[in-house]
Amino acid sequence: MPIETTPAHRALLLTDLYQLTMMQSYLEHGLTETAVFEFFVRKLPKGRNFLVAAGLEQTLDYLQQLHLSADELTWLSDSGRFSKSLVDYLATFRFTGDVHAMPEGTICFPDEPLIRVTAPLPMAQLVESRLINILHFQTLVASKAARMRLAAPERLLVDFGLRRTHEAEAGLMAARAGFLGGMDGTANVLAGSQWSIPLYGTMAHSFIQAHENEREAFIHFAHSHPDNNVPLIDTYDTEKGAEIVADIAPQLRKENIPIQAVRLDSGDLGAHARKVRAILDRAGLQDTRIFASGNLDEYRLQRITSKAAPIDGYGIGTRLDTSSDAPYLDCAYKLEEYAGKARRKRSEGKATWPGRKQVYRRYDGEIMVGDTLTTEDDAAQGEPLIRPVMRGGKPLSPHPELAEIRQHTKAGLARLPESLRALEAAESPYPVTVSEALTSLAETVDARTHDT
Amino acid sequence: MPIETTPAHRALLLTDLYQLTMMQSYLEHGLTETAVFEFFVRKLPKGRNFLVAAGLEQTLDYLQQLHLSADELTWLSDSGRFSKSLVDYLATFRFTGDVHAMPEGTICFPDEPLIRVTAPLPMAQLVESRLINILHFQTLVASKAARMRLAAPERLLVDFGLRRTHEAEAGLMAARAGFLGGMDGTANVLAGSQWSIPLYGTMAHSFIQAHENEREAFIHFAHSHPDNNVPLIDTYDTEKGAEIVADIAPQLRKENIPIQAVRLDSGDLGAHARKVRAILDRAGLQDTRIFASGNLDEYRLQRITSKAAPIDGYGIGTRLDTSSDAPYLDCAYKLEEYAGKARRKRSEGKATWPGRKQVYRRYDGEIMVGDTLTTEDDAAQGEPLIRPVMRGGKPLSPHPELAEIRQHTKAGLARLPESLRALEAAESPYPVTVSEALTSLAETVDARTHDT
Repeated sequence: MPIETTPAHRALLLTDLYQLTMMQSYLEHGLTETAVFEFFVRKLPKGRNFLVAAGLEQTLDYLQQLHLSADELTWLSDSGRFSKSLVDYLATFRFTGDVHAMPEGTICFPDEPLIRVTAPLPMAQLVESRLINILHFQTLVASKAARMRLAAPERLLVDFGLRRTHEAEAGLMAARAGFLGGMDGTANVLAGSQWSIPLYGTMAHSFIQAHENEREAFIHFAHSHPDNNVPLIDTYDTEKGAEIVADIAPQLRKENIPIQAVRLDSGDLGAHARKVRAILDRAGLQDTRIFASGNLDEYRLQRITSKAAPIDGYGIGTRLDTSSDAPYLDCAYKLEEYAGKARRKRSEGKATWPGRKQVYRRYDGEIMVGDTLTTEDDAAQGEPLIRPVMRGGKPLSPHPELAEIRQHTKAGLARLPESLRALEAAESPYPVTVSEALTSLAETVDARTHDT
Repeated sequence: MPIETTPAHRALLLTDLYQLTMMQSYLEHGLTETAVFEFFVRKLPKGRNFLVAAGLEQTLDYLQQLHLSADELTWLSDSGRFSKSLVDYLATFRFTGDVHAMPEGTICFPDEPLIRVTAPLPMAQLVESRLINILHFQTLVASKAARMRLAAPERLLVDFGLRRTHEAEAGLMAARAGFLGGMDGTANVLAGSQWSIPLYGTMAHSFIQAHENEREAFIHFAHSHPDNNVPLIDTYDTEKGAEIVADIAPQLRKENIPIQAVRLDSGDLGAHARKVRAILDRAGLQDTRIFASGNLDEYRLQRITSKAAPIDGYGIGTRLDTSSDAPYLDCAYKLEEYAGKARRKRSEGKATWPGRKQVYRRYDGEIMVGDTLTTEDDAAQGEPLIRPVMRGGKPLSPHPELAEIRQHTKAGLARLPESLRALEAAESPYPVTVSEALTSLAETVDARTHDT
């Protein structure tokens, strides 16, 4: 076994080399004044109407604990690649900056900062790679989960995706972000243990196959789990599996073991569900629900539920946890101010809005009608979305419970205009207006940096 | 801050709930005989011709260290969800099974087992979720990286993807799998420190923006990094950036500071590169190379290199590290034998080949011409790909160095038939023949389990 090194999720060196080379130059040339960076999404993935901000809790935890471990220090010193001043700086590094952010679970849109970091330039620079890495993934999955919820508002939706997430931490955080975005539970035991997310799960095909036949497998499982008895009926033939369930039900009833549900995992789920429903009903199993899984996403969910298939709940895995139709967001963490002067990047197709920004959201009754993106010191109509969350490296309040964040998402989804609740891109995207104060700041910045 | 719990990548509870519910039933009903599971990919993503097996080292490390931590034991006991016999079993759990596998870096195809686990049923079952999670992701990224290499065989290719990978561990393992599959290096410092992967990186746009102008930024960086001096020239205007580089070169030359390369990161990379090349050449900077990044994948690489753009190296990020066109593989870990009897699943569209299997690869001279998938005890022509790697929970030999695995991939790619080296799906896929021994075993199994 390899020597146990600092786990990736806590490693200071889980960063891009250029953060260190830039820091070294900043330190050498005295560029250590206050910098302001903001993280935002440049544009929505195709077919999407909104995003759900997520990952703030893990971002703040990361910033709070960030330090160089002993093995990292050894590697840095031994590599011969870095100046003594950089190594010394990192050896005692602690994040002592300020953070402003939207609460997790806030519905948000392109160009709106999800988070703002205010800190000495080398410090704010160092945290870029991992900060994007955390916020990007959870926002990606929470946004996808919200679509699942919109596609099947009344159904039980459970995250089954761990096995095909991109490694362990993605598995854990996909369960968190999925729940936050609207899922009802997860199969991921570690996630359940960490955030009290309701856990679901009964048996795989291997359980059936390890037995001589399905009947024996179903009976064994029922006896072991009388309170969580959900036979998987498609290992050999779905309808035959349902008949076996119907057949063993009377004996189990005598033993006071209900059959809570059956699970389908292959073929045309809607068509099988209808046949299985009929078989169960004929056997007096009206209370036995039908749970389905297998290659599901929001589009398939909507198609199945629109045909009124008798399916009560769904296990959704890979396509949720990898956000498979859009496995990444075009997002960035950009320098917006340094040493008191607003900055912006003007690269082709990648220009940014300069300065410290605020987002104001307006409502018509209960419905969101438009946001204004403006400078922090400008006043605009509506509710300001960005608030201080960390000062001098210390969080300003305990992080909300995950269930509370989930509730915030739910309330936000209820306030979305109808056209934005559809799975297809709305004809008119949600209006995010750039204020006069901000456009005029951008012009000032451009005039100043015109002569490079 | 939350209490430090077992890190996800080492947690026994990073598994699906059904593994635990099944185990409980196995233990209660004495289903503890030897089980054989195999991990394989069901089918290739669209447009792909082959896969590169990866992740075996981390899989074996995982199996070797797997145990229940104190905080996990507390949660399990307190949850009231599991039987005492299951909790006791897990409290002292150690993986003591056997593993057979293809070496990492082996070119492979659908239905071919990458790994086989032989262990008592509850033990082999427990490890399913995380074992898939590890092998799936690294195989995904190594396979994608091999395509980058085929698209630009002679260019420097560097992994830039950390920020948009799905969390920390994905960032780390994407760098490993990418290097293994054919990349030349990474920007990921932690990955470089763990596996001696060559590290690359210089500056981001924020470095330029923090300075009053590009000229000052370029000069500062050159003085800080005379051996790694690669100005990023597209923050405001790419060609103007190149002119500034040309302008400061004579002074830097006097100081013995070369300009190793310039980096472009936006716009039409090929077109900009031509103009920049001309500017550099006019200034006598023929030795200054051009490095490009920004939304690259194998298709764009091929397009740019086919037009002979004067670009010497590429930074490839998101589309490699998330395998964005195919962010998951249709793969599974299935029970193939239990208590000495071969098993298979017959679910619609998801049937598997039963029993312990071997893959034999045939060559015509240096070129691979076909594989045979057969039973372990059958003999077929060619080179057997699956070998014992762990016995009784102990690895049989030290894991090869990553550079050695990368070499194995490279040799494999050189032996691929020409049609399979294209980025588009070959008209005829690589032939994987199922032996008579295996089809006849499948028939026997079906006859036995026909009457469920």
